Amino acid sequence: MSEQRPKRRGRRSRTTQQDKPGRAPDYRQLRNPFTPVDLFTADRIEAMHDAALSALEELGIKVLLPEARAIFKAAGARIDEHTEMVYLGRDIVMDAVANAPRSITMRGGAPGRDVLLELGSLVFQPGAGAPHATDLERGRRPGNERDFRELIQLTQHFDVLQMMPPLVEPQDVPTRVRHYATMEAQLTLSDKVPFVFSRGTPQIHESFEMLRDFRGLSDADFHAEPHCYTIINTNSPRTLDIPMAQGLIDFARAKQVSIVTPFTLMGAMAPVTVAGAITLSHAEALAAIALTQLVQPGAPVCYGTFTSNVDMKSGAPAFGTPEHFNASIVAGQMARFLGLPWRCASGSAANINDAQAANETQFGLWGCILAGSTVVIHSAGWLEGGLTVSYEKLITDLEAVQMVAELCVTATGSSDEDIALDALREVQPSGHFFGCAHTMERYTTAFYEPLVADWSNFGTWTENGSKTASERATGIWKGILAADDRPAQDGTRIEALHDYIDQRTADGGAEVVS
Amino acid sequence: MSEQRPKRRGRRSRTTQQDKPGRAPDYRQLRNPFTPVDLFTADRIEAMHDAALSALEELGIKVLLPEARAIFKAAGARIDEHTEMVYLGRDIVMDAVANAPRSITMRGGAPGRDVLLELGSLVFQPGAGAPHATDLERGRRPGNERDFRELIQLTQHFDVLQMMPPLVEPQDVPTRVRHYATMEAQLTLSDKVPFVFSRGTPQIHESFEMLRDFRGLSDADFHAEPHCYTIINTNSPRTLDIPMAQGLIDFARAKQVSIVTPFTLMGAMAPVTVAGAITLSHAEALAAIALTQLVQPGAPVCYGTFTSNVDMKSGAPAFGTPEHFNASIVAGQMARFLGLPWRCASGSAANINDAQAANETQFGLWGCILAGSTVVIHSAGWLEGGLTVSYEKLITDLEAVQMVAELCVTATGSSDEDIALDALREVQPSGHFFGCAHTMERYTTAFYEPLVADWSNFGTWTENGSKTASERATGIWKGILAADDRPAQDGTRIEALHDYIDQRTADGGAEVVS
Repeated sequence: MSEQRPKRRGRRSRTTQQDKPGRAPDYRQLRNPFTPVDLFTADRIEAMHDAALSALEELGIKVLLPEARAIFKAAGARIDEHTEMVYLGRDIVMDAVANAPRSITMRGGAPGRDVLLELGSLVFQPGAGAPHATDLERGRRPGNERDFRELIQLTQHFDVLQMMPPLVEPQDVPTRVRHYATMEAQLTLSDKVPFVFSRGTPQIHESFEMLRDFRGLSDADFHAEPHCYTIINTNSPRTLDIPMAQGLIDFARAKQVSIVTPFTLMGAMAPVTVAGAITLSHAEALAAIALTQLVQPGAPVCYGTFTSNVDMKSGAPAFGTPEHFNASIVAGQMARFLGLPWRCASGSAANINDAQAANETQFGLWGCILAGSTVVIHSAGWLEGGLTVSYEKLITDLEAVQMVAELCVTATGSSDEDIALDALREVQPSGHFFGCAHTMERYTTAFYEPLVADWSNFGTWTENGSKTASERATGIWKGILAADDRPAQDGTRIEALHDYIDQRTADGGAEVVS
Repeated sequence: MSEQRPKRRGRRSRTTQQDKPGRAPDYRQLRNPFTPVDLFTADRIEAMHDAALSALEELGIKVLLPEARAIFKAAGARIDEHTEMVYLGRDIVMDAVANAPRSITMRGGAPGRDVLLELGSLVFQPGAGAPHATDLERGRRPGNERDFRELIQLTQHFDVLQMMPPLVEPQDVPTRVRHYATMEAQLTLSDKVPFVFSRGTPQIHESFEMLRDFRGLSDADFHAEPHCYTIINTNSPRTLDIPMAQGLIDFARAKQVSIVTPFTLMGAMAPVTVAGAITLSHAEALAAIALTQLVQPGAPVCYGTFTSNVDMKSGAPAFGTPEHFNASIVAGQMARFLGLPWRCASGSAANINDAQAANETQFGLWGCILAGSTVVIHSAGWLEGGLTVSYEKLITDLEAVQMVAELCVTATGSSDEDIALDALREVQPSGHFFGCAHTMERYTTAFYEPLVADWSNFGTWTENGSKTASERATGIWKGILAADDRPAQDGTRIEALHDYIDQRTADGGAEVVS
């Protein structure tokens, strides 16, 4: 078979290649094709929601930012200023959360780059927030500005990664000016919705300014719609720290998107049970979402969770486990109970891009997909439980992510022409369908074309150097960086951005609040 | 966190380890926890079924075995003896298929080893039928008897692999006596349901004899229930060859199980569309199932498909692709239309146990799971599109298979105790749940314990030799083989089996029919 095919294709391709374009699947706006899975009954989801409200009401949540405590107090919450505990009555919470929008459109730098956040839509992000980067050529190192920029370029290249996340921490850039570096890279190398770090009001406001001006928006236009987002991790159990609370407030005021994601490991910072961990995560998310709505009713905000487990023998975090999977499923039930778009996460605890790494990330991915997650973060490249982003794993994981995207966008036909009784009639026993009319009409667009998979036989693969998927991935990311296919941008805006950054840097940058 | 945990665990473990046994999940009888996914509407599934019946009626199927043609003729089919084509009226087919049982219990060599085949049950098999074997110590080689025996031992070890498949072809054993070697290994090294090769009546009957006597069954007992199975691959398109037709007849007469699995690659031996390929596969499966029921109404038989696609650039087979996934989903709809248990397949076209290999096999696995497949073959170890079984991939894939099994067997609680408001009350902000009562009551059985995943941090992992999952898997399979935990067997039966084999070997073995 494999010997016949190239000949046959060679003969036909001369006449057909011009007429028949190859596949160009559009992964930019995905809908999840699967019905979300339920693990618990509706009454137990309600019981968890009720327990979360009881926790906020009776046990309270520690809120380190005085301004946030004042906002909660104004809404009627009981505050203990000495312990910084906020006791949130359930009506305060749910009256506020009721204002959160069920559908959010974030504007990208080009029309095709808008991102729709609502139940049913499906958005992928690569691994994010890592202190280290690694690749097969340069090894593992503390994340630096070059890594950040390269990973922006790689993220930009793949349509299936619709939003920019905080890929790696550029540790070689001083913290007072780091937001200039991260915004400059996202704006000039990408036209996707950028991520803004929540490290205090000064850096947030400057980031908003840079984005507004680079996109050519008036201040009113900028505030009329979301153009960027931040990620808010609570400090489980039951703590909201200063920069996170400030971020919620600042983003709500600016009508930009906060994605609220308590990060809880069952058995460590959360109860050992799925029901307990998600109840805690839900309580923290409700408090954070309520804060945004008390600041600005209708402010765009995304529910979220990232709940996995630890190894109970060593305390080591684990990802892509059955418990992580089930926690995602139950979190999805909570999100649907609220009706809000929500973020979930995949990931791996492996230390190298091997079979463990692939299996854990894909297992976690299916948890997110079947949970009906709106945004799936850490879907590609995340090693060591988030301590490292791997360039090669980014590529090999994207194969699985793109294959899921294919399930979203491919219209698998079931018409009489697809059933193809005529083709069955044409091809006799012992024959094959390579050259039949039904195949020739469809072969250029019939199948997903792999990113990094090598389907050649063992002999050919050996002749080509017996490369692993990781080794082939090195060539792929290097090729993307070399091609440097950054989007066309207005040169004057780039210049203005650089002038702004130079000026502010000369002024000493902006304070980091922690 | 990871520094605190070992201390805490060390302190508690002395008092708790005796009282609290670790996890011992039972993977032997699984039910699929997911609602099967539909891709096509019910009327289009019916249209495919109707097209398949039209194909059998109007286009016919080539049946190389005269006895099979005679059976079809006696049932009223139109036969062209010159072309060996059989034209099967739809009533003949469906009247026969209506007799196929919807639930089959296969008896293993021990009560816990019985296998239930019906819609909703879930059975895994490792990669099978490979001409080659490979491992990191000995490299890739033509499959031999030692490989066959070792892979039987590895399959026996893992409860999640409930049936024995034809793992590798022991090419160093002459074909006339090969069935003695494969039966001896399966019977003495395992108590799971064995696989019998369909290579003509003489070898099939001798295999039945060996199994019957080794299990201590009378002839009547043996024929009263299924104790073994065979796999029937049609030769797509529309051909049933001599050994396969003979196998269907012999197994039906003996009331043993045939698993009918047309192996079709979209664009090669089947139409390029999912609908067309599954229609062809369905037609061939119907003809084969009908043959079994014409021989013996009620004979145990399993519907099946293995439909993936080729790379349209090179003709190379591909597995674990989006099209493979969708074909599995649609095949599941056809199986549910008939109401029969059915077999589906995962797999990988990778040449080495890398991220591609893991991703393809797991992607294919999820296709089978969400399709509601009863038996998932090639779920672990299958490389090069089935040309090689890898010992290391067997282990690393089993991690994913066991994690799926966890989703089947783990009762994820949602009681008030699971929601754990008391634990939330006990642990204050900045605290952790490691030592709280709720955790201590549950930690020994809370989480899945990995088979090969290493969750240690980068430093520890590096100190331990920076081993990949594949390298760790080598140690695991070697440990299992060294432990040699074969089931207890009656020594006199082993002796009798060996005497039988010696005698028959001295007589020249049994003819292979092809």
